Amino acid sequence: MLRFVDTATESIDPYVDLVPAEQLGHVRELARELRGARILQLNATSYGGGVAELLNSLVPLEKGLGLDVQWGVMVAEPSFFAFTKRLHNGLQGAPQFEVTKDEVEAYMRHNTHVAEEIRGKYDIVIVHDPQPAPVQLLARDTTAKWIWRVHIDLSAYNRDAWAFLEERIEGYDAFVFTMPEFVPKPLDQSRVHCFAPAIDPLSPKNIALPADLRDRIVRWTGVQLDRPILTQVSRFDPWKDPLGVIRVYRELREKHKGLQLALLGSMALDDPEGWSIYDKITQVVEGDPEIHVASNFTGIGNLEVNAFQSASDVVIQKSIREGFGLIVSETLWKGTPIVAGRTGGIPMQLSDGEGGFLVSREEDWVPRIDALLSDGAEAQRIGGLGRERVRQHFLITRLLEDELGLMAGVRSAPASTATPS
Amino acid sequence: MLRFVDTATESIDPYVDLVPAEQLGHVRELARELRGARILQLNATSYGGGVAELLNSLVPLEKGLGLDVQWGVMVAEPSFFAFTKRLHNGLQGAPQFEVTKDEVEAYMRHNTHVAEEIRGKYDIVIVHDPQPAPVQLLARDTTAKWIWRVHIDLSAYNRDAWAFLEERIEGYDAFVFTMPEFVPKPLDQSRVHCFAPAIDPLSPKNIALPADLRDRIVRWTGVQLDRPILTQVSRFDPWKDPLGVIRVYRELREKHKGLQLALLGSMALDDPEGWSIYDKITQVVEGDPEIHVASNFTGIGNLEVNAFQSASDVVIQKSIREGFGLIVSETLWKGTPIVAGRTGGIPMQLSDGEGGFLVSREEDWVPRIDALLSDGAEAQRIGGLGRERVRQHFLITRLLEDELGLMAGVRSAPASTATPS
Repeated sequence: MLRFVDTATESIDPYVDLVPAEQLGHVRELARELRGARILQLNATSYGGGVAELLNSLVPLEKGLGLDVQWGVMVAEPSFFAFTKRLHNGLQGAPQFEVTKDEVEAYMRHNTHVAEEIRGKYDIVIVHDPQPAPVQLLARDTTAKWIWRVHIDLSAYNRDAWAFLEERIEGYDAFVFTMPEFVPKPLDQSRVHCFAPAIDPLSPKNIALPADLRDRIVRWTGVQLDRPILTQVSRFDPWKDPLGVIRVYRELREKHKGLQLALLGSMALDDPEGWSIYDKITQVVEGDPEIHVASNFTGIGNLEVNAFQSASDVVIQKSIREGFGLIVSETLWKGTPIVAGRTGGIPMQLSDGEGGFLVSREEDWVPRIDALLSDGAEAQRIGGLGRERVRQHFLITRLLEDELGLMAGVRSAPASTATPS
Repeated sequence: MLRFVDTATESIDPYVDLVPAEQLGHVRELARELRGARILQLNATSYGGGVAELLNSLVPLEKGLGLDVQWGVMVAEPSFFAFTKRLHNGLQGAPQFEVTKDEVEAYMRHNTHVAEEIRGKYDIVIVHDPQPAPVQLLARDTTAKWIWRVHIDLSAYNRDAWAFLEERIEGYDAFVFTMPEFVPKPLDQSRVHCFAPAIDPLSPKNIALPADLRDRIVRWTGVQLDRPILTQVSRFDPWKDPLGVIRVYRELREKHKGLQLALLGSMALDDPEGWSIYDKITQVVEGDPEIHVASNFTGIGNLEVNAFQSASDVVIQKSIREGFGLIVSETLWKGTPIVAGRTGGIPMQLSDGEGGFLVSREEDWVPRIDALLSDGAEAQRIGGLGRERVRQHFLITRLLEDELGLMAGVRSAPASTATPS
């Protein structure tokens, strides 16, 4: 079954002063080309997770640009999602992937229902991630153009999981990945496109806050603004090494008296590991009034994170492993310098001296952050360069440009052939 | 062990335009009287929960008023808190309360450590809730004045729990409860005071947001501003009847086409019941694009709640049981009318026609909300009266007035006698 998300329509006009003018011009031009095309964005959830967040920004703007776009969400029983979660893990490289007859049957049955609901109704269908992936095969609708948009890293796939999926996605006109590194080798590379994700500068996470409001939000958590602030925003997850952040901070404090650490985390729905790390952090931090741990259980939402990213002197992103790591762009957009692990999509967003520093060796964290804390003017200059890089490459208008450009491309391509990459 | 919270110092000046002038004048006068007194606020946690939130607003303002105040937090092993949680439940009326020798020993031992740390160092000690309650007895410090501030409802206590506590709190100079209804009968009424809690108009929950920011926050959740919005903010808890809210909403929608429902909930740390209710809600709501469920798992923090309370046409608080229900004052402070259950402290904050309506019978929810939705001008007038009531009685300055007044009173009372109520 399919459920449609009743999104707002947002004008692109308020973005004029924020984004590169040529991007905006090109987006408007592409939107004119696509006018009249019936477009469907199809995914598996309307809230929670990066995909829903992206669509939540994209779809209202596409509507505001005059496109005839709908956002459909798959409705299915929990066992369907339990299976697609395992498929997702397998595609990301989980060592085991097995599938029962019943699971295949349910996966294809749910997708058949969706395929029947959309057959003949759209000119362009963008299908997100593996849950609704077989819809193209099942719809047997050659009038429409089909784009499979993959938000996860498929480079180190489990062979069984890939074999299961491969035969069900072969017919797409185009495949879109986040980075070239995420593309599975066997895929027809001539149909592969790569769009980096992007941030919405007017979403609650990124919108500019009045300085007095921002300062009140930060002070209210007990963090003081007359002394330097080092912040990490991340899930409480070993891959973000929060305990390592505390070690780095304590070493820095020997030189930078009065330095405060803010650890802002979010806890996921079902993540027992997150809880045990959270407990460890609170134990380690107990009795240290300069370390402030806050989370979605103490009133921290998107706007509070925004305020901290903006008010911090330096942000640390001590990622050991990362997908794209869009939080780096969120941080840089506030002009705050960031010292981050050289992993996943982080080096794409940040280079040494432009936005902050990349770190590969454990012993480099302290000197890199120290350098930024010791020279405020230089830190500000480096942060400013980071903001400009985000403005050019990682704002939602650049993503709109990519997505609309691809749609215009596949639409004008002859039916049933591969699209040039 | 005792840990001190390193709070900011906040000036009272930014409150001038928000609070009644005479309250502010009186607060300043009382602060002058108390200058030089060494004051300790003592509780069991620096984050999470209403008490920590209150102290988070009060202590910085008391410091800003020139008071010599510290905020100390008890540090103890988890088994201590497991016991005090059971004591807390017993004092609130849980049918079973048993205590082992080891538990008594640990409870008294931790409190002895704290008592030794503070003995002789303060002129006034405000002890919050049952965890540190025996500190007064154990400190044997008759120079200091001792206030036991109770934030929970002790009117229907379990006898065994009360007997356990009673002999450990008899020596306090004053007892402060939230409402007269919460006071246990056996307590020496001549030493009992009642202070309603209060909201901080400059905290992230209540600070005025620029209209464009507020609107963006709300729209970003998918709720649209050109159609009416009904909102409930509450834990996903049977006592707040979220499924009942959905029923009421669906009935209202028959008349008010386009009415949207926002259910903003927060999920607690360890609340399996909350999860099962959340699941039920999402099932009931599935396929209904006009019902928006959001929580601390989808980026909702204090500021997002603030934005919704301000942007809603009507707020519903379908509480079956409630403590004080301070969320009513939070809502009314935004000038938004509220229809709420006649329970706990709600009737103190709201009366029919002044801030909204009180409901006792199930069949009254729909007509009361309907009346407010049908007459926008009247709804606004009623909301405005509610805001004024909050301004007079439920802002942090009124609470400061009460607390500072009591401190000045106990301080000037002769040593070791009961304080006049």
